[in-house]
Amino acid sequence: SISQDIDHILETQSALSVDLGGTNLRVAIVCMKGNIVKKYTETNPKTYEDRIRLMLKMCKDAVRDAVSLNCRILGVGISTGGRVNPQEGVVLHSTNLIQEWSSVNLRTPVSDALGLPVWVDNDGNCAALAERKFGHGKGVENFVTIITGTGIGGGIIHQNELIHGSTFCAAELGHIKVSLEGPECSCGSRGCIEAYASGMALQREAKRLNDEDMLKKEGMDLKLSEPITAAHLISAARMGNSKADAVLHKATTALGVGIVNILHIVNPTLVILSGVLASYYKEPVQRIISERALLSAQSIKVFTSALEEPALLGAASMVLDYATRRTY
Amino acid sequence: SISQDIDHILETQSALSVDLGGTNLRVAIVCMKGNIVKKYTETNPKTYEDRIRLMLKMCKDAVRDAVSLNCRILGVGISTGGRVNPQEGVVLHSTNLIQEWSSVNLRTPVSDALGLPVWVDNDGNCAALAERKFGHGKGVENFVTIITGTGIGGGIIHQNELIHGSTFCAAELGHIKVSLEGPECSCGSRGCIEAYASGMALQREAKRLNDEDMLKKEGMDLKLSEPITAAHLISAARMGNSKADAVLHKATTALGVGIVNILHIVNPTLVILSGVLASYYKEPVQRIISERALLSAQSIKVFTSALEEPALLGAASMVLDYATRRTY
Ligand SMILES: [Ca+2]
Ligand SMILES: [Ca+2]
Ligand SMILES: [Zn+2]
Ligand SMILES: [Zn+2]
Repeated sequence: SISQDIDHILETQSALSVDLGGTNLRVAIVCMKGNIVKKYTETNPKTYEDRIRLMLKMCKDAVRDAVSLNCRILGVGISTGGRVNPQEGVVLHSTNLIQEWSSVNLRTPVSDALGLPVWVDNDGNCAALAERKFGHGKGVENFVTIITGTGIGGGIIHQNELIHGSTFCAAELGHIKVSLEGPECSCGSRGCIEAYASGMALQREAKRLNDEDMLKKEGMDLKLSEPITAAHLISAARMGNSKADAVLHKATTALGVGIVNILHIVNPTLVILSGVLASYYKEPVQRIISERALLSAQSIKVFTSALEEPALLGAASMVLDYATRRTY
Repeated sequence: SISQDIDHILETQSALSVDLGGTNLRVAIVCMKGNIVKKYTETNPKTYEDRIRLMLKMCKDAVRDAVSLNCRILGVGISTGGRVNPQEGVVLHSTNLIQEWSSVNLRTPVSDALGLPVWVDNDGNCAALAERKFGHGKGVENFVTIITGTGIGGGIIHQNELIHGSTFCAAELGHIKVSLEGPECSCGSRGCIEAYASGMALQREAKRLNDEDMLKKEGMDLKLSEPITAAHLISAARMGNSKADAVLHKATTALGVGIVNILHIVNPTLVILSGVLASYYKEPVQRIISERALLSAQSIKVFTSALEEPALLGAASMVLDYATRRTY
């Protein structure tokens, strides 16, 4: 009927976006312009079966909601921690940040359950795709993004495309090493910037200081029942706690030196920091670049992402870019 | 005359190759197949004027010799330490390994003096071009080369082309940092793999041990007048000198961890080591990759270069590839 045709035309072309992180499992409906129409957040389950089951349930609920929101879902984009073969839609291997998450085919079960095409990539790579389509990377041929959450992820855009590498292990920027020894990392090795500067690393140090009764400063609002996080470390340092300050200084130096390594390897036009700690890190990282990089790289600019949810938006961009090109 | 025409036909298409390194200034006549027909070596002068003067003299001598060797010189390829803008033929900036070597236009004086087209690139990048045309990189889409001489240089081939970067500072692999502190580097910073594992770094450590009277082992052939080098450090370690062994172990670990960083950033198919220390480093670097890289990158292979002179051959390849494409 005519009214049905009009309804169809008024539908917004959208993507279903999934982000499988070290802490949360999130699903979102993202429309063509990059707006998140609806978002669903759960704790990411610890086992493979529970994780897949919850993901499929959240996706089905979202597809149902999309109908009433008049969003036409073109496909599913999945962002996940770990090394991903995007051609196959398979997670090859993950660090212990996400357990039971190696040799996992994500495309087949999601595509079977929803009857939609599915794209999968690494979370850092998705963050870079989001910056390319919606953020500071728009129109920039070569840039790098580093996303700090529970862990640290990254993505490299070279000549407008992601670098995936020969074994899909490129842009594993969290596992750049800035020490021959250094703290243990989720990857099993040592000295990675993730082990110094991720949310998890700062939380580990905050807990350690708190256990030694050296975190809390007078006047600091910290309830006994409250879980200790990176935020407490930052506020303690701001209130003059020199131990907290030393921990953060080391974290920042490690992240900055790791980024200098990126500049000396791929020499991008700009570096985009995202995640909750991005605004905290921006200024000191820029200073470390000016102090420690080769002269030719010292002027490379560090931006903080203007995007609310880079991983989810990047996952959506895989759908919006490819599905529209192929189908319409 | 007919005999002149035949002579002309029998001439071999060749390149003049120049390598401006931290120690030597070398010029070579390189024929199309990658054979070095004749080579000239001098100590690289310490001042800009002397260096340019000597380079032009050596080039003119070589051009003269080329005639009698029946080599038809198509152009000049120059390999140099420092950051190079190959489009302009200009050295932008160098570390103190080559003094008075910033903002130096190499193309114009050489082209004016010889009446030949001139190509210029960084020495590590030239080494990578040599591997692509004549070495282990033939037909390999993504690989990395690391050349250890006085300093450490590198080149990255991605999708069959060099990565130069936004400010011609990509593949400065000697200045990958593996320590937040660490030894001082020629670049003015600290903790770079060049400061741990270059010929110059090992020589510095060998001299230090020798000054402390801890280098020489019984039965070791070391004359008082002989300059102390990396080779003495290696032979002392092989004869059971535990101090020398510890220095080399640290150097190797630093180089290996630096290469792991490369694997986690661009994830090439293979790593090619060249320079005098390549065969020494190959095995321990392969072991460090298997111990410290992410699982997906652990199997990436380390080769030693089969080329006698990667920087000179790579400089020649710029001429042979471009000049033949353009002129013939
Ligand atoms: Ca990545
Ligand atoms: Ca280089
Ligand atoms: Zn790690
Ligand atoms: Zn350096």
